[in-house]
Amino acid sequence: MKIGILGTGAVGRAMAGKLAALGHEVVLGTRNPRETLARTGPDRRGQPSVADWLKQHATVRLAEFPDAARHGEMVVNATSGDGTLDAIDSAGEANLAGKVLLDIANPLDFSSGFPPSLSVCNTDSLAEQIQRAVPTARVVKSLNTVNTSVMVDPAAVGGGDHTIFVCGNDAAAKATVVGLLRDMGWRDIIDLGDLSNARGTEMYLPIWVRLMGTLGTPRFNVKVVR
Amino acid sequence: MKIGILGTGAVGRAMAGKLAALGHEVVLGTRNPRETLARTGPDRRGQPSVADWLKQHATVRLAEFPDAARHGEMVVNATSGDGTLDAIDSAGEANLAGKVLLDIANPLDFSSGFPPSLSVCNTDSLAEQIQRAVPTARVVKSLNTVNTSVMVDPAAVGGGDHTIFVCGNDAAAKATVVGLLRDMGWRDIIDLGDLSNARGTEMYLPIWVRLMGTLGTPRFNVKVVR
Repeated sequence: MKIGILGTGAVGRAMAGKLAALGHEVVLGTRNPRETLARTGPDRRGQPSVADWLKQHATVRLAEFPDAARHGEMVVNATSGDGTLDAIDSAGEANLAGKVLLDIANPLDFSSGFPPSLSVCNTDSLAEQIQRAVPTARVVKSLNTVNTSVMVDPAAVGGGDHTIFVCGNDAAAKATVVGLLRDMGWRDIIDLGDLSNARGTEMYLPIWVRLMGTLGTPRFNVKVVR
Repeated sequence: MKIGILGTGAVGRAMAGKLAALGHEVVLGTRNPRETLARTGPDRRGQPSVADWLKQHATVRLAEFPDAARHGEMVVNATSGDGTLDAIDSAGEANLAGKVLLDIANPLDFSSGFPPSLSVCNTDSLAEQIQRAVPTARVVKSLNTVNTSVMVDPAAVGGGDHTIFVCGNDAAAKATVVGLLRDMGWRDIIDLGDLSNARGTEMYLPIWVRLMGTLGTPRFNVKVVR
């Protein structure tokens, strides 16, 4: 499948690497490819530069947001929460119309430091804001409840016996995402229902952030025991 | 231990029954015992009346909020979220001073129907509101992430291999609650840290409510897999 990924951070690269390894044709979208490629050396999190990362992932092409969105039969939003609506606007509704738009972002607000609060919650969610911004896209929320390392390698934690959630208003779009999740190694996938359930998965982030501190690692997840 | 429980609903009765069975001296608090006892027949959820319940639990005494709080070396807030601050005010700070105050309530707001939103979240929590209302009490948040049936019988789900959270500002108070949780059958207990972590456990409720709908039962919990 042709997949466009918006965002070149840890989530975007992890998803791009995994999906390319699974045989998908991946285009990684950024606001300004020339500026992105001009950054050299590890970033502030110690990740290699995008330029160096691309050398290790020869089948992945870097492009502007609209180009990446146009390329994709599925588009993945892997931007940071505070940049998401701008990135979606930049990608352009015409390039997203009718497509599955997998939203992984969380509306984390670090303006008051750590731990972050949420910039939207309770009676709305980032995923619903995206859906309102591009009504013709078929938004599915998933994978926002785990760290990138778990996201693309669920078996690395507890033998893979833990849970990932999906929600969205379009059943066929959810089925497409569920198929992709299975290919990525996810076995316990719970469909919560319509896109308003993104409120629940995004509001799970505050306990996730504190668990990361308590456990001393982001490599964990929850299993829904029933 | 002498334990006062505020609230005669499903949570208050489940906790009262369990703690009495464990040998604690339990007083169940309500706003107006005469009015509470005057209600006959099952309530709207099909539970027996408090009067009938008390006949089955002869060691549990019904009393006014201040009396129940005064009795307890530990006090349990098992009121509904929208009644909590009134109940705490009614119990009286003098009756709560220096005591462990285990808060199980969730700030669910059903004013716009189902599913509920939260009446406080993100940068504050019900537990922190309680702590500010009674600064001399030692508030510990726990057990608010599970249904009453799981709360008092964790082994009934998945053999008991799932997680419960505690948080609070007083280490000794948390140790007291953790001891009680172990007596109740809880094995995987995670201390998240100070009381601001109640934001995380209360904000978990929206996904809990939707999971209840998806799974068709409130008898489930999450295990933190790490």
